[in-house]
Amino acid sequence: MKYELYYWPEIQGRGEYVRLALEEAGAAYVDVARGPRGSGAMMKMMEVRKGTPPFAPPFLKAGRLVIGQTANILLYLGARHGLAPKTEPGRLWVHQLQLTITDFVVEIHDTHHPLGPSLYYEDQKPAAKKRTAEFWDERVPKYLGYFEKLLDANGGAYVTGRRLTYVDLSLFQLVAGLRYAFPKRMTAFEKEVPGLIGLHDRIAARPNIKAYLASERRIPFNEQGIFRRYLALDA
Amino acid sequence: MKYELYYWPEIQGRGEYVRLALEEAGAAYVDVARGPRGSGAMMKMMEVRKGTPPFAPPFLKAGRLVIGQTANILLYLGARHGLAPKTEPGRLWVHQLQLTITDFVVEIHDTHHPLGPSLYYEDQKPAAKKRTAEFWDERVPKYLGYFEKLLDANGGAYVTGRRLTYVDLSLFQLVAGLRYAFPKRMTAFEKEVPGLIGLHDRIAARPNIKAYLASERRIPFNEQGIFRRYLALDA
Repeated sequence: MKYELYYWPEIQGRGEYVRLALEEAGAAYVDVARGPRGSGAMMKMMEVRKGTPPFAPPFLKAGRLVIGQTANILLYLGARHGLAPKTEPGRLWVHQLQLTITDFVVEIHDTHHPLGPSLYYEDQKPAAKKRTAEFWDERVPKYLGYFEKLLDANGGAYVTGRRLTYVDLSLFQLVAGLRYAFPKRMTAFEKEVPGLIGLHDRIAARPNIKAYLASERRIPFNEQGIFRRYLALDA
Repeated sequence: MKYELYYWPEIQGRGEYVRLALEEAGAAYVDVARGPRGSGAMMKMMEVRKGTPPFAPPFLKAGRLVIGQTANILLYLGARHGLAPKTEPGRLWVHQLQLTITDFVVEIHDTHHPLGPSLYYEDQKPAAKKRTAEFWDERVPKYLGYFEKLLDANGGAYVTGRRLTYVDLSLFQLVAGLRYAFPKRMTAFEKEVPGLIGLHDRIAARPNIKAYLASERRIPFNEQGIFRRYLALDA
């Protein structure tokens, strides 16, 4: 079975956490909206009717199943592709960590959209500056500090112990994204989270991820996604 | 086994979605931080060390298992207490809807905290007014419209069909909370979502929920939680 991933074709966004898991697993998938069927096929699946229409992309079609919400897709894939423990406690724990990453991703997005997702960044620049300052003073140390300590408490290899999970792939993406969006701030901050930086480097060097990152399947970071490089926000 | 729920003792907040599920299920639980052990016991469980320390409340202790993240707790409880389907596709679908509610709850919170969770509302009033306007113009119709259409497409009784799930309990809480926080705006909006209003009323009348709402276990809405009544934001 070939998975069908539905996500906006121009950005990494929330779809990227799913792409990284599919790529690491070597799973066969089509990134539908980047192909000939385009975003139209995706929008059609979101029409609300009987069944399980998703509220928003990304969503994954796996045979007849349509699964929405990034963390929910990873919950499904993790169990099938060795990217999460098989026991229920293990699966819940890894999913819990992914939901904490989900919360952080919203806050990353809000640095450039504090007044709401429907307005342009250009219409909320002063608020974005304030929110970004608070984000780097309080939120980045809190979130990344939590994962750094967990990594350390669990031996330093992967965040939940000796085996890679999809959470490690998502942590790679957080480090890569913060480096892209806030190069100065992140350079200054990295010494606080040496374990996560090491994890990022090890993930980037894994054969499947390395090949993916060098391919055209990896969309470059840009200013339509979650991680946006706006000089005014990078102190 | 008696569950232990850990959440801030003064607010409904994100813990309320868990409380409603436990109450509807008639499950035995202790709301730990509201008892003699107070918030200290909760803070202690959050110290990062080997094991599964949660990033933030709410979390549920079920025997030796500690489960964090509201939607993850409901995923666990749903399967055990008949508040979600037993099949994997059904469980994923109900969880996906809960994660969409989770996204909406963040946006509700951001109406009074657009510049970040670490600052006081009083320090971000003009930004809160702008965010709230956008929230009611764009986001409430989008989220509640989605659930209204789903409810309608699935027969009108519960959002996923003929059986109650924890998502219906959470939708009750959204309607109750929006009524509390934005009485004028919500009164004007309710005609757009008659199905959800009916669902709210039916949930409120269920014996276990009715008894809960009338008890001291239900903390009143107040201005420390997610739903806050600030006259300046209720146009």
